[in-house]
Amino acid sequence: MLVRKHLDVAASQEMPGVMKREVINADDGAPNFCMRVFELEPGASTPFHTHPWEHEVYLLGGTGVAVSEKGETPISRDSVIFVPVDEKHCFKNTGKDTMRFICVIPY
Amino acid sequence: MLVRKHLDVAASQEMPGVMKREVINADDGAPNFCMRVFELEPGASTPFHTHPWEHEVYLLGGTGVAVSEKGETPISRDSVIFVPVDEKHCFKNTGKDTMRFICVIPY
Repeated sequence: MLVRKHLDVAASQEMPGVMKREVINADDGAPNFCMRVFELEPGASTPFHTHPWEHEVYLLGGTGVAVSEKGETPISRDSVIFVPVDEKHCFKNTGKDTMRFICVIPY
Repeated sequence: MLVRKHLDVAASQEMPGVMKREVINADDGAPNFCMRVFELEPGASTPFHTHPWEHEVYLLGGTGVAVSEKGETPISRDSVIFVPVDEKHCFKNTGKDTMRFICVIPY
């Protein structure tokens, strides 16, 4: 069993204002999926993109929007988001505080 | 894209003091893994058991311990726990508040 704090894991900058930590991944022996924690500064957004794998997301804090081609949906602490395979999406921090979320993806 | 709050999902009682919500599962179209949110009342514990699939866990709030055959490790908000396949484990709420965690499992 591995027990750590998310801040024990080194962060990488994905793009300006967007930091990522892989808190559980294949290096830890995880066989099927990877748990990442993202932090977005106010005004920051992930890219509006698509890929052939799903996202399972849980908002830890902050406020923003989840964006699809159908529009924007407000998200806040304890929001849950499922992004299906190949659906265009991004997440934007529209609040004044850091927006934090877990995003789980398959290998 | 599906956006909801975790409280929008009906809870089931797993055992006394332990509630579970499947916030993203196969019924939502998730193809590989299931995101659950557990709430443990003070003093409650999940069963000390093993199974042939892993857990990826993130503590949302409360304080307790993650237990393996090697002993107990304190956990609190933003603790991350990886339980490998077939490793005996449980989670106990040793604090005064509800302990909440995300637990992701493969199908």
